[in-house]
Amino acid sequence: MSGKLTVIGLGPGSVAQLTPEATEALQAADVLYGYGPYLDRVSLRTGQRRQASDNGEEIDRASRALAEAAEGTNVAVVSGGDPGVFAMAAAVCEALERGPGAWRDLELSIVPGITSMLAVAARVGAPLGHDFCALSLSNNLKPWAVVEQRLKAAASAGFVIALYNPISRARPWQLQRAFELLRGYLPGNTPVVFGHAVGRLDERILITTLEAADGSGADMATCIIVGTSETRHLARPNGTPLVYTPRSLGAFNT
Amino acid sequence: MSGKLTVIGLGPGSVAQLTPEATEALQAADVLYGYGPYLDRVSLRTGQRRQASDNGEEIDRASRALAEAAEGTNVAVVSGGDPGVFAMAAAVCEALERGPGAWRDLELSIVPGITSMLAVAARVGAPLGHDFCALSLSNNLKPWAVVEQRLKAAASAGFVIALYNPISRARPWQLQRAFELLRGYLPGNTPVVFGHAVGRLDERILITTLEAADGSGADMATCIIVGTSETRHLARPNGTPLVYTPRSLGAFNT
Repeated sequence: MSGKLTVIGLGPGSVAQLTPEATEALQAADVLYGYGPYLDRVSLRTGQRRQASDNGEEIDRASRALAEAAEGTNVAVVSGGDPGVFAMAAAVCEALERGPGAWRDLELSIVPGITSMLAVAARVGAPLGHDFCALSLSNNLKPWAVVEQRLKAAASAGFVIALYNPISRARPWQLQRAFELLRGYLPGNTPVVFGHAVGRLDERILITTLEAADGSGADMATCIIVGTSETRHLARPNGTPLVYTPRSLGAFNT
Repeated sequence: MSGKLTVIGLGPGSVAQLTPEATEALQAADVLYGYGPYLDRVSLRTGQRRQASDNGEEIDRASRALAEAAEGTNVAVVSGGDPGVFAMAAAVCEALERGPGAWRDLELSIVPGITSMLAVAARVGAPLGHDFCALSLSNNLKPWAVVEQRLKAAASAGFVIALYNPISRARPWQLQRAFELLRGYLPGNTPVVFGHAVGRLDERILITTLEAADGSGADMATCIIVGTSETRHLARPNGTPLVYTPRSLGAFNT
């Protein structure tokens, strides 16, 4: 079987954050599968085709991409950020496991990318500077009770929390509920960072506190970082504050 | 004050995984500070200087870099992987907060990079495909009891766990102890991935189980990913297995 499938991370949005490895893999593909807005970031070369699909159709998209690769085509599946973080790589693996046995023999590569929380963190300092977790707030793929249990476990144990998929039209209340729950485990002045579309033209960063955090300030293109009781919010005369979590526990307890 | 300081993520090691933004920032700097082996990855252009220091001297290195930037120099501090993940960005922020007031007015930028767990995950499939955490096993900067508490919390709540700084000459037993502890919370057949020097010439990947995982198989250049009870290890006829965590909880419980 001569076809291959490559799952490619486009990073947060700016081409300055797209790795050379990803650029090369995009160039090499015969056809690119992906969610429409991600495909729109890629300039097709002559002879390349695109297969856009809607958000939420990941397994179906992965299966169609695998089927075409099995016919001998060089197929790319594109993801925003890193394909291994709440994105297409797991969907492709699952479709491969569930699909025809011949798919298991396909050449499959994953090209990593800068995932959203890293890009948001870099904009404000180093909020992920100590132990942290990444948690999807979507309860489409797990019960909401599991989300709550993980939020409690992470906050209680002192992990910084990066929230992916915070809100959507079909899931309007989850983020606000997450903030309410976290207020029971973390001080009200815990720094919270909203990073919207980092690296793109409509980038917006908001730094607030857990007490003041408002779920309605987010959308699907927002990644939210909730600090710990150790996370620092440092005012600066030039107006660009720093938010960071010291590497040492208790670094500022004297 | 005209100086500036940029903290630059070099990614896992291969230049194919170095972003154009990082390449440009490296070119622009007058002087590069960093741990020697990271600086060795960068080709200096004419007129550039390097200030290598040993591992473990992060706050001192950060302070010297900030002091030189405050004199009007364009200073780069280089980090392996992503500077915001157990690396130099938090050290620079902490040194800035503790240092002379004038440092707060410096122009400070962080350039993100592909962090180790993303590169390791991409090599084997998508083990971070569901909620996950990143945890440093070093007890230089926090008590070991806190590490144990976080391992328990993460495993009990169903987070995949990426272990950074797993072992060193001064910390020989921590990784083995972590595996022993995790065996009390996760099935023995939970997939465990050892990723050594991914993207570099001496790359080695080992896929094993929690039951069989041996702490002596790691070194400072290894990132380890411990799955959950949901993580799949799929044999393939071409000999390259896939390890991934399905996006849906209970995807394979029928």
